[in-house]
Amino acid sequence: MSKGKFIVIEGMEGAGKSTAITVVEDFLKQSNIPFINTREPGGTPLAESLRSIVKSVEHEETLTQETELLLMYASRSQLLANKILPALEKGEWVIGDRHDLSSKAYQGGGRNFDDAVMKAIADVTLKGFKPDLTLYLDISPQIGLSRAKARGELDRIELEKIDFFDRVRNKYLELASKDDSIITIDASQSMPMVHQKIAEALAAFFK
Amino acid sequence: MSKGKFIVIEGMEGAGKSTAITVVEDFLKQSNIPFINTREPGGTPLAESLRSIVKSVEHEETLTQETELLLMYASRSQLLANKILPALEKGEWVIGDRHDLSSKAYQGGGRNFDDAVMKAIADVTLKGFKPDLTLYLDISPQIGLSRAKARGELDRIELEKIDFFDRVRNKYLELASKDDSIITIDASQSMPMVHQKIAEALAAFFK
Repeated sequence: MSKGKFIVIEGMEGAGKSTAITVVEDFLKQSNIPFINTREPGGTPLAESLRSIVKSVEHEETLTQETELLLMYASRSQLLANKILPALEKGEWVIGDRHDLSSKAYQGGGRNFDDAVMKAIADVTLKGFKPDLTLYLDISPQIGLSRAKARGELDRIELEKIDFFDRVRNKYLELASKDDSIITIDASQSMPMVHQKIAEALAAFFK
Repeated sequence: MSKGKFIVIEGMEGAGKSTAITVVEDFLKQSNIPFINTREPGGTPLAESLRSIVKSVEHEETLTQETELLLMYASRSQLLANKILPALEKGEWVIGDRHDLSSKAYQGGGRNFDDAVMKAIADVTLKGFKPDLTLYLDISPQIGLSRAKARGELDRIELEKIDFFDRVRNKYLELASKDDSIITIDASQSMPMVHQKIAEALAAFFK
């Protein structure tokens, strides 16, 4: 049996990741491809407990930028070993709601950790593993955050200032421009147009 | 006011760290030096929750070596920012039950993470911070583990095989031989002799 593929949806708050995921799910269902869904940070019991720590706005102590970075990768290590790799090995596909590119964008771009640090930690955690296809939904922080706010409470990271999100977006765009496996989709377009672009990207990937 | 100093007690299970800590405490009390105690992993509410994850033998999932490494440093980052640095800044001394040398020995030596990886993660977490004095209590795994077993249940890391602890000890000895701020004390000696060696090391440090 051939191995599964790992397709990741990336983008900032309010970019429309959830609906994009349903488009990918429908595509795989129609193709009779078995798949599982993951989300990051989280996706295993241990990783979900780390997610709670990273996202919570209620801490008795300062949560350092370094802790945030390290917990993101600890969560990723758990998910990779316990969920992603076993599924791919069985021939199942994996649809990821975020993966390593999020850390590169949020901790690397947003928090200004330098590229060498980000590479060292990613290398030890992932050992060269990467998604087969990443769909990056690009949106301005202004539009994305106003959509996210309309949905409800913001978590600790979502409460950052606008220039944080500008750095996140710039890093997303920079990394997407350097990697052919990352497809950038303009998420400010109408919903039907975004869906069409996702479908086109998937069709091209399947060829 | 002058800054406090950070004195760390290091060593394997059963080396006698707890009693060594009381010797240091007595020494500081007699010198009218205010101090706090820390332990690693742990020492803040968030870091203690990471300690529970790292030490627990009951996980529904594989806890990867990478997660262990990353959580040790996340715990250290929290302790440094929220406890150690504020205390030193106030002029209090800090007595640490383990610090970075433990990660170098257990994850670097025991788990075989290479030196470059260990350095990269330590650098981003600690930014050059290090203890003023480290007392490393050297004991063979055979003696140490038999003492630890006599005390009660072993945790997840303490359940490793003997060659793991041989690598831990070798890394401790290697790093201690390269760093003048680390004093190696033969912990297989009689308790009074160990205490005397600790007192001598402290007296030399105070000069």
